[in-house]
Amino acid sequence: MDDFTCPGFRAAGIAVGIKKADTLDLALIVNDTPVGAAALFTENRVKAAPVVLSMERIKKTLPRAVLVNSGCANACTGPEGRKDADILTGLVAKELSLSPGEILAASTGVIGQRLPRRRIEDALPRLVADLSPRGFGRVARAIMTTDTLPKCIMRRFSAQGREFTILGMAKGAGMICPNLATMLSFVVTDFPLSGGSLENEVRRAADASFNAITIDGDMSTNDTVMVMTGGDASFRPKSDDIVRFSDMLSDLMGDLARQLVRDGEGATKFVTITVSNAPDTKAARATAFRIANSPLVKTAVFGQDPNWGRIMGAVGCVADGFNPLLADIYFNDIPVVRGGVGCGDEKEAQAAKVMRQREYAVIVDLHSGTASFTAYTCDLSVDYVKINADYRS
Amino acid sequence: MDDFTCPGFRAAGIAVGIKKADTLDLALIVNDTPVGAAALFTENRVKAAPVVLSMERIKKTLPRAVLVNSGCANACTGPEGRKDADILTGLVAKELSLSPGEILAASTGVIGQRLPRRRIEDALPRLVADLSPRGFGRVARAIMTTDTLPKCIMRRFSAQGREFTILGMAKGAGMICPNLATMLSFVVTDFPLSGGSLENEVRRAADASFNAITIDGDMSTNDTVMVMTGGDASFRPKSDDIVRFSDMLSDLMGDLARQLVRDGEGATKFVTITVSNAPDTKAARATAFRIANSPLVKTAVFGQDPNWGRIMGAVGCVADGFNPLLADIYFNDIPVVRGGVGCGDEKEAQAAKVMRQREYAVIVDLHSGTASFTAYTCDLSVDYVKINADYRS
Repeated sequence: MDDFTCPGFRAAGIAVGIKKADTLDLALIVNDTPVGAAALFTENRVKAAPVVLSMERIKKTLPRAVLVNSGCANACTGPEGRKDADILTGLVAKELSLSPGEILAASTGVIGQRLPRRRIEDALPRLVADLSPRGFGRVARAIMTTDTLPKCIMRRFSAQGREFTILGMAKGAGMICPNLATMLSFVVTDFPLSGGSLENEVRRAADASFNAITIDGDMSTNDTVMVMTGGDASFRPKSDDIVRFSDMLSDLMGDLARQLVRDGEGATKFVTITVSNAPDTKAARATAFRIANSPLVKTAVFGQDPNWGRIMGAVGCVADGFNPLLADIYFNDIPVVRGGVGCGDEKEAQAAKVMRQREYAVIVDLHSGTASFTAYTCDLSVDYVKINADYRS
Repeated sequence: MDDFTCPGFRAAGIAVGIKKADTLDLALIVNDTPVGAAALFTENRVKAAPVVLSMERIKKTLPRAVLVNSGCANACTGPEGRKDADILTGLVAKELSLSPGEILAASTGVIGQRLPRRRIEDALPRLVADLSPRGFGRVARAIMTTDTLPKCIMRRFSAQGREFTILGMAKGAGMICPNLATMLSFVVTDFPLSGGSLENEVRRAADASFNAITIDGDMSTNDTVMVMTGGDASFRPKSDDIVRFSDMLSDLMGDLARQLVRDGEGATKFVTITVSNAPDTKAARATAFRIANSPLVKTAVFGQDPNWGRIMGAVGCVADGFNPLLADIYFNDIPVVRGGVGCGDEKEAQAAKVMRQREYAVIVDLHSGTASFTAYTCDLSVDYVKINADYRS
């Protein structure tokens, strides 16, 4: 990922000492030919200072850069925390000869601690000097917290005979769902879409990706997805081009989201939960997340136990206009439940084999309509508990 | 508990081999002087056969006995499972010279497996022969699944110069909240309350006890709370007497509920979560449960880490007309957050000491009204995951 580039964008990642070890923890992305920007922020009503700052600024001004740190969420830090974010983005603006309103911010890490602002201030000139077209891999590393691997993806596509690039980075969200750990993602592209069209595409791509791994309303204080577009503002995307961009963006965000789940804290399994033939998307989504979030289902996944009763129990908790006793349940192509009743020991033994795989699908066919939704989840392992019990110590 | 008695009631518990080892797994409670009955059943839309049977029968007839088994939930077993419950309660009725409609049923254990009906049929005469006024301790043991201790409580009180008894048994609900494991409780009393008054008292007592440890709608396929009253039907309770009964019932159910949490799967901590000064009870309750159910909060409790940011994150997820940034958070009497901002390292160090205790309180003062709610929870431990990963194997 260290040779990934996107025309018109530069990036940097350095170690400042916000995190304990000598690891990358401060990053900057700069858009030298800005055209558009769209962002989605946490719906948690406790929003970190950088989230509030970015929400305010993106409404008013086209952003040209984003300053990101890991190791400290700058959340629940009151007016002082907001001042830290103001001062630091102000200094970045100065270094880049931009106005402060053009700089966004994002943070991830422990809630309730102040940023080591002086240390960051001193490091900003070094951060700006480190900017390079090939800096995105270092950004991907600098935003990691409990992730074990950096996530950085690049895709290319063409429109009207021109080549375009989409480049995305993300950091993980703890247990993924239910989660209160932060998910950050930054996407840059030289496909010069802007305004409402860009916002629509970002929302649509996020709904099937980052929002398919994070239950609505159960978000951290810092979750942020930012997309910045740049390049040749005179290029007029046709509707076919936008469709191609949309596909690429969905593909890239979907890929990043699945990488987050695969790298979930302590995860040993990656499970795709598809609820089909639901009365509507809301019911399909609610059912998929109810299953994906059940600690009992997730521990059974960890234990490789085809304990489908826990899945039926989760389905029955969703009160959304369908009869749960019509449900069929499959592990990959192995049916374990038909019409709410178990298919017997032989099928369960086959399902147990499926569950020994690292990745598989659970399909719940509700036989109550035509809507469907797919959620992604990982298991709840002994290591998840250990990681989260020890996170700050 | 083996000398607990309640006038007019008999009970029995025997080992039939539904569970693997030679442990008690079949129980019967008989009300020889029935006056009233009230029951609360799971709101899960996937209801076990015995739940459906009991819901139907209690509407029509005053119940005189309840047959209970552990080791098999008889849920998701289709019409055959229902037939098993019909046949077994029918045979109990025959043994007791009652009509089948007077016999209720409850089951707990693995979902999706059929009851070993023949084995139970053969054992029923032995079960009935085992009935005795001192059998309640054996019932408490016979309904256990992953519980490590039986729960059985007796209380006495007087009204109009007469002595009355309330005797209650319960079995645990896995992780308690969020739970899909079964909670069963049976309460018998010779205080001869019946009809709507009894139903009101049972609902009220359950709301502050069993429903304070089990999140609404997140119930197992089998959850059941049954209260049977008997004794002298000519006794006319005065309103003072009913208040005394109500207090006793609340006290007894609260005690049982707290015992369930203390004995939660893998639990090493018992935490009382009180949300105070909320705009209304709904908001207080939603906030208390959001905290009590957060895997990140529960792992921090296990790790004895005063990571209050996870509590603030949970509070911010509740969208109920208050400003989460007004919140104060205490661990017992140690403030760690004031007005949404941390109180510093010294207070955290004191809170860490509190968290080393086996039992403590988390108080969240929302400063947004006068309503409050208390929920009870345990930690999410490494052993919880191990128990639930291995439950069926």
